Amino acid sequence: MARAVKGTKMKNDRYIVIVGCGRLGSYLANQLSRDGNSVVVIDRNENTFHGLSPDFSGFRVEGDATQIAVLKEVKMREADTLIATTHEDNVNLMVAQVARKIFSVPHVLARVFDPNREGVYVQLGIDTICPTSVAADMFLRAVANGTTDEDGARS
Amino acid sequence: MARAVKGTKMKNDRYIVIVGCGRLGSYLANQLSRDGNSVVVIDRNENTFHGLSPDFSGFRVEGDATQIAVLKEVKMREADTLIATTHEDNVNLMVAQVARKIFSVPHVLARVFDPNREGVYVQLGIDTICPTSVAADMFLRAVANGTTDEDGARS
Repeated sequence: MARAVKGTKMKNDRYIVIVGCGRLGSYLANQLSRDGNSVVVIDRNENTFHGLSPDFSGFRVEGDATQIAVLKEVKMREADTLIATTHEDNVNLMVAQVARKIFSVPHVLARVFDPNREGVYVQLGIDTICPTSVAADMFLRAVANGTTDEDGARS
Repeated sequence: MARAVKGTKMKNDRYIVIVGCGRLGSYLANQLSRDGNSVVVIDRNENTFHGLSPDFSGFRVEGDATQIAVLKEVKMREADTLIATTHEDNVNLMVAQVARKIFSVPHVLARVFDPNREGVYVQLGIDTICPTSVAADMFLRAVANGTTDEDGARS
């Protein structure tokens, strides 16, 4: 399995493990692979790998990332970054926690659906991104801006 | 039904219809109601209204927003803003299109899951927000920043 050699790696020659190959996971895998990183994607469902681009140069692993054996198989200890993007907060939290605490992965990111859980992640040293919160902020800004514009246009 | 009187309305006294009361829809409804707007939320499933805050001062309508009768019931023609936030791109597209073309709602926003559809919305004068694309960009930035930091910390 091709991986960045530590100490000599370039900025975009990192070893990145992505758990979950849905719309978000596959987009990140394609982009990070295109940028020159070594990427491994894990998903329980082989069909999701169809979302990967033909020029995706990383590895696909069909398996359950909550199983330590699967994480060992992908050499999790050597990963620079783990990204947990499944649709289940519990799975993302567990995988991220194991990556951080057992495999000492330096940079761990997780998608979180329930913003109330973000505090737990922060305590564990895991960066979180909540798509709903991010989208909500954008909608609120759009509502505020749009109305100002429309008032101007309609008056 | 309390609504903003056009011509005399304040900045935050708009009439806003939100379709879909999931996590995003309920968050927006609570926030926009708290900000002083007149808000109506439509959802096919009454149980989703539990996501609304106790101080939500707007109206809940159980119904299918793809039915013109339901949109007439909520006085769609008088809405300043429509926000389509269901989990189905087809429903959001249809409701947004009807609001824009039939009810002449001046500002129409839709959540879109499949970024490939965004072009269709733009042609129809509908603003779109794709949570997956937004989250993906944030993840990519976090990966880039995180690694730079970690390289510094680990060298």
